[in-house]
Amino acid sequence: MISTLHRGGSRIVLSQVEIGRLTLTQQRMAIRSGRYQEHTAGLAAGRLQANLAILPQAYAADFEAFCRENPAPCPLVGKSDAGNPIWSALGDIDIRTDVPAYNVYRNGELHDTVPDITDLWQPDMVAFALGCSFTFESALIAGGIRMPHIEGNTTVPMYRTNLQTRSVGPFGGGMVVSMRLIPDEQVPLAEEITARYPWAHGAPVHTGDAQEIGINDITRPDWGDPPLGRGTPVFWGCGVTPQNALAQARLPLCITHTPGRMLITDISDTEDAFV
Amino acid sequence: MISTLHRGGSRIVLSQVEIGRLTLTQQRMAIRSGRYQEHTAGLAAGRLQANLAILPQAYAADFEAFCRENPAPCPLVGKSDAGNPIWSALGDIDIRTDVPAYNVYRNGELHDTVPDITDLWQPDMVAFALGCSFTFESALIAGGIRMPHIEGNTTVPMYRTNLQTRSVGPFGGGMVVSMRLIPDEQVPLAEEITARYPWAHGAPVHTGDAQEIGINDITRPDWGDPPLGRGTPVFWGCGVTPQNALAQARLPLCITHTPGRMLITDISDTEDAFV
Repeated sequence: MISTLHRGGSRIVLSQVEIGRLTLTQQRMAIRSGRYQEHTAGLAAGRLQANLAILPQAYAADFEAFCRENPAPCPLVGKSDAGNPIWSALGDIDIRTDVPAYNVYRNGELHDTVPDITDLWQPDMVAFALGCSFTFESALIAGGIRMPHIEGNTTVPMYRTNLQTRSVGPFGGGMVVSMRLIPDEQVPLAEEITARYPWAHGAPVHTGDAQEIGINDITRPDWGDPPLGRGTPVFWGCGVTPQNALAQARLPLCITHTPGRMLITDISDTEDAFV
Repeated sequence: MISTLHRGGSRIVLSQVEIGRLTLTQQRMAIRSGRYQEHTAGLAAGRLQANLAILPQAYAADFEAFCRENPAPCPLVGKSDAGNPIWSALGDIDIRTDVPAYNVYRNGELHDTVPDITDLWQPDMVAFALGCSFTFESALIAGGIRMPHIEGNTTVPMYRTNLQTRSVGPFGGGMVVSMRLIPDEQVPLAEEITARYPWAHGAPVHTGDAQEIGINDITRPDWGDPPLGRGTPVFWGCGVTPQNALAQARLPLCITHTPGRMLITDISDTEDAFV
């Protein structure tokens, strides 16, 4: 489809509605060419979407160990070959171009947000893909559990907690969680369904009283929008945790996806994918 | 995923936003179980969607010949084995349950709209799948041509014309067209792109003066919403044509998809799929 995209000289930027009508290949080409830089929620139904972290190889072993020690907030689904921006294990993917938008951190500070990191790519870089909550939210919906924040087109609420990660090298800090209000009678089902997706945060890390994990007011999240719906608060490990760990480690250079703009892989997003 | 759907006893009806978050398999299971009965536009990115016509075998040969004589409005992409509701050539498909909503015609009159035709299925029935405009609209968007009716969440305008189909047996009548306003300089590109999709209406049947094909006022379509956008009117063969031909033939029983509620196949919706 590259020839189609470039023939006619068109450089129109696509809306979320427009990209939703494209095939997976067309969606990727639109992202690769910088024509789509928005959220990926709801795109590429059936394909695994992932959080992305790119860092110098010198820190890669520690970061990988940190993820393995903290699988609920940091579920590792892939690691690229050092220096190789083509990530064929995850599909027809060029790490430098295939995420709608990247956050570039220098010494732990957000330096820039860009649609392409080709100019920033270094031969010692390693990329990590971490599972994300889109996977288990689809499974919860399929299981008959409503997700009011999706229906309301808001971002799920996320909170700092008093739960600590297990530190490895420069990586550590508190665990961040996302929260969904689940109707009381569906809480066991929600726990059962998400436990099947260990590569996408897995089972809840806490259910019920928010104060037990250091959250004083669930109506005032640290990130995202206030909660919608009614029921028991159920908390899952959240991908903001490794982002905070990376920022606190103050690496000279670190690149992540911009929140909500995920890496779309070619891997089937089913229960069997990583079991 | 059937066990997940049924476990918990949930029978919630899904919204378009919710089903958009599901995997292809989950989407099909939601449709199969009657939990989703709405439009399929934008679902299952990358999979061919098709118009569906189910009729008694006694009329099947004539209808197939009618489609082959009129490929622009009636692009045939598949025919099921008579009496067999499982349509494995198109994927994991049960014709009786896998369309969100069906129109049931008796003697040419709309008799009922139902989410499931298991009770109506007869051993002499044959199903036909005809390509639809979702395919070429995706290609036009990927090619840099805006589709304002999609962005505006309206239905494309459709018109009766003075163009006649080639009749076969009881099947005939006028050709119905859909129309999109294309910026003047992009008209050749739009013609070139859609010509690559003969199984999805192919190249336009007319470009420019609407009155030449018997349309007096493009702002007042016979079906769908008034046109959005600006440019040259470009007309493509439309799947309402075979629906009208079937109604006019006054078959004792005929079942189609309800407009907009398409059959989602497992076939890849790419340029190579049917060439």
